Amino acid sequence: MKKIVILGSTGSVGRNTLDVISKFPDKFRVVGLTAGWNSDELERQIKKFGPKIVSLASEEKAEKLKKRLRNRDITVCSGVEGLIRVATFPDGDLVVSAIVGAAGLIPTLSAIKAKKNVALANKETIVMAGKIVMEEAAKNGVEIIPIDSEHMALLQSMAGHRREDVRRLIVTASGGPLLDASLSRRRAIKPNEALRHPTWQMGAKISIDSATLMNKGFEVIEASRLFDMPAGSIEVLIHRQSIVHSMVAYKDGSIIAQLGVPDMRGPISYALNYPERLEIGLPQLDLAEIGKLTFRQPDLKRFPCLAYAYEAMNIGGTMPAMLNAANEEAVRAYLDGNIGFLDIPKIIRKVMDSASAKKVEKLEDVIVADGWARETASGYINSLS
Amino acid sequence: MKKIVILGSTGSVGRNTLDVISKFPDKFRVVGLTAGWNSDELERQIKKFGPKIVSLASEEKAEKLKKRLRNRDITVCSGVEGLIRVATFPDGDLVVSAIVGAAGLIPTLSAIKAKKNVALANKETIVMAGKIVMEEAAKNGVEIIPIDSEHMALLQSMAGHRREDVRRLIVTASGGPLLDASLSRRRAIKPNEALRHPTWQMGAKISIDSATLMNKGFEVIEASRLFDMPAGSIEVLIHRQSIVHSMVAYKDGSIIAQLGVPDMRGPISYALNYPERLEIGLPQLDLAEIGKLTFRQPDLKRFPCLAYAYEAMNIGGTMPAMLNAANEEAVRAYLDGNIGFLDIPKIIRKVMDSASAKKVEKLEDVIVADGWARETASGYINSLS
Repeated sequence: MKKIVILGSTGSVGRNTLDVISKFPDKFRVVGLTAGWNSDELERQIKKFGPKIVSLASEEKAEKLKKRLRNRDITVCSGVEGLIRVATFPDGDLVVSAIVGAAGLIPTLSAIKAKKNVALANKETIVMAGKIVMEEAAKNGVEIIPIDSEHMALLQSMAGHRREDVRRLIVTASGGPLLDASLSRRRAIKPNEALRHPTWQMGAKISIDSATLMNKGFEVIEASRLFDMPAGSIEVLIHRQSIVHSMVAYKDGSIIAQLGVPDMRGPISYALNYPERLEIGLPQLDLAEIGKLTFRQPDLKRFPCLAYAYEAMNIGGTMPAMLNAANEEAVRAYLDGNIGFLDIPKIIRKVMDSASAKKVEKLEDVIVADGWARETASGYINSLS
Repeated sequence: MKKIVILGSTGSVGRNTLDVISKFPDKFRVVGLTAGWNSDELERQIKKFGPKIVSLASEEKAEKLKKRLRNRDITVCSGVEGLIRVATFPDGDLVVSAIVGAAGLIPTLSAIKAKKNVALANKETIVMAGKIVMEEAAKNGVEIIPIDSEHMALLQSMAGHRREDVRRLIVTASGGPLLDASLSRRRAIKPNEALRHPTWQMGAKISIDSATLMNKGFEVIEASRLFDMPAGSIEVLIHRQSIVHSMVAYKDGSIIAQLGVPDMRGPISYALNYPERLEIGLPQLDLAEIGKLTFRQPDLKRFPCLAYAYEAMNIGGTMPAMLNAANEEAVRAYLDGNIGFLDIPKIIRKVMDSASAKKVEKLEDVIVADGWARETASGYINSLS
C-alpha cells in the first residue's frame, strides 16, 4: 500500500490523480491533500478519501473547514507552513506535486528534503530551481518521476537503453489552440477562446502557456534538467494530435517513441505506480483508424516564447526563474483581461532584456530573481493596461 | 573483439553485415563465411576480411576456390557438412544466420547447440522449427537476436519494460509493391516488377514474400516464437513508409515504438553489438520533413497469404513448416516464370488443405513435414505450368 500526498488536489492534475487512485483502493491510500481556495471540493475529497492531514492556502477557509470537520480525526492547516507540513507528512511515501506555478517550489523541495519520492506535475519547480532540486534529489536518494506526458514519454523511451547512446530528445507539441491563427486573430484573442486546447483538458495557466508555446519551452528546460541533456540536444516537433508524446533519438539513428491517447491519467498512473503499469481502462490507440500522424517544425517567429525559453536555458543561472516569473505575471494579467495575448511575449522579452542572470547557489538566489522579475513585469503590465 | 561468423555472406543481409563490420575493425573480426554459388564474391570477401574458414554449397566450386587460395591459411569446405563446420567453428562468438529459406535451419540449430549466440535474419528457421530452436537456445544459454527490422523494433520497444505488462505486438508492414494494385495487375505481374520493393532493398525470395505479405505472416509467427506471445495478441498494421518498424502496446494503453530510416544496417548493427548501439552514420530521421506517418489495416482478402500464416500459427505443430515449404516452392516457381503471382497463395491453400499437422517433438518431424509439403506443392505447380 503506497501512501500518497497530493499538493494541489483540487486542480486538474490533482482531480485526475484522485480518479486513478479511486480505482486501486488496494494499492494506494491518500494521506494528505492541499488546495488553494476551493474548500468545498477539498471537503468532498476528504470525505471520499479520508486523508490524515490537509491544508488550504487561506487561513480563514481552513478555520471554517476545521470546524466542519471537528468530529473527524484529521489535521487541518493553512498557508505555506501548512503546505510544508503536508508535503513532509511522515506517513507519505509519494508526494504528487501538482500546484500550479512558482508556489509549488517550496513544498516540493521540502518533500524532497524529507526523502519523499516526488511525482512532479509542477514544471515551474524545475524551470526555476532545477539545479537545486536535482541536487537535493540526488543527495536524498529521491526519485523524481515527471507527470507531464512528454517527460513520461521520454522516461519510457529511455528505459532499458544506454543513456550514453542518447543523442537527442524530441519533445512533441500540439501547438495549442492558436497554432495557425492569423496575427490579427492572435492579437484579439480573448482568454475564454485561448483556453480551448485542441487535445488536452488542463487548467487555465497551463492552457495559456500552451497557446503561447511557453509551456513547451518550460518542458524543454525541464527535460534538460531531469535527463541531464544540453539544450542543443532537445528539439521541439509540432504534432497536432498529441498521440506521440515524445521521442528519444539514439546514436545509431534509431528513435524510440511513446504513444497513447491524450489523457492525463496515463502519465499519472505511470508516475503513481512507477515502474509498474496499471490497467486504468483508457481506450486502446487504433492507429489504422487514426490513419496518419502529422509532424512539422515550430515557427519560433510566430511563437517567440519558445525561443525565449531556449535563450533562458542557454544563459542559465537565474534566467529561467526570471523567465518563469515574468511569464506567470503576464499570463495572470492576460487572464484578468488587463493585457492582450501578444503582450505576453513582449513583457517577457522586456524583463529578459533588463535582467542580469546570476549563478544559482542557494534557493534564495532563485527567490530574489523571481521577485525582481515579477516586480519588473508588473511595471510593464501597468504601463500597458 | 567479437568474432563473427556469417552464414550467407554474399546475400543482401550478408553483404550489409560485412559493410557494418568494415567500419569497426577494432570491434569485430570475421572468422567464418559461407556462400551458395557466388564463389567470386566470396573470394573478394575472403581477401578483404581474412576469415579462417569458409564454405560453399557447391563442392566443385569449393575445390576450385581451395586451389586459388592454396597460399592462404584458410579452411575451405562445402555442402551441408561445410556449413555446419563454419556455423560451429570454435573461434566464433556470434553467428549471423542470413541464409535464405529452409536451408538455414540445420546450420542455425548447429550453431545454437555449439553455444554460439545467433543474430537471426533467417526467419524460416523460426517459422519451421520455432519450438525446437527456442528450446535449444534456452538449454544452451544462447541469445537469439533478430535482424529483421520489425523484431529488432519489438526487442527495443520491450527493453526496460515489464514483460507481464505487454498486451499486444503491432508489427508494421510496408505492404510491398502490390498493395494497391488491381486484381488484373496482380494476376499479370512479372517477377522483375514484383521485385521492386517500395522501401527496402532485399533479396529476391523475401521481396516476393513482401509482395504477397507472406513475409509479414512469417514475421508474425517469428514474433510469437521469439517473444512467447499468443497469435491473437500480434497485429499487422500497414505503414507504407517503413519508418515505424514495429510497436509494443502495454496494459496501461501506452505504446512504445521504434522508428528509423529503412536501412538494414540499422538492425544489423544493433544485432552485432547488442545491447550497445553503434554510430553507423545512417541519416537522422527528420519527421518534420517527412510530415506524416500513415497507417491502415491490411486487407486479408486481397493478401490471403497473411491470413494463411495466422491460420498455420493457430493450428501449430508442423503446419507453419508446411506453410513455409509450400511458399518456398511456389515462390521459386513464380520467379522461374512457371506460375503466375496469384498462383502462389492458391498453391499454399491447396497444400494446407491436404496437410495434417503433427506435434513437433524432434527436428525430424519438421523435416518430414517440409518434404511432404514440397512434394505436394510441386505436384500442384506441375499441374499449373
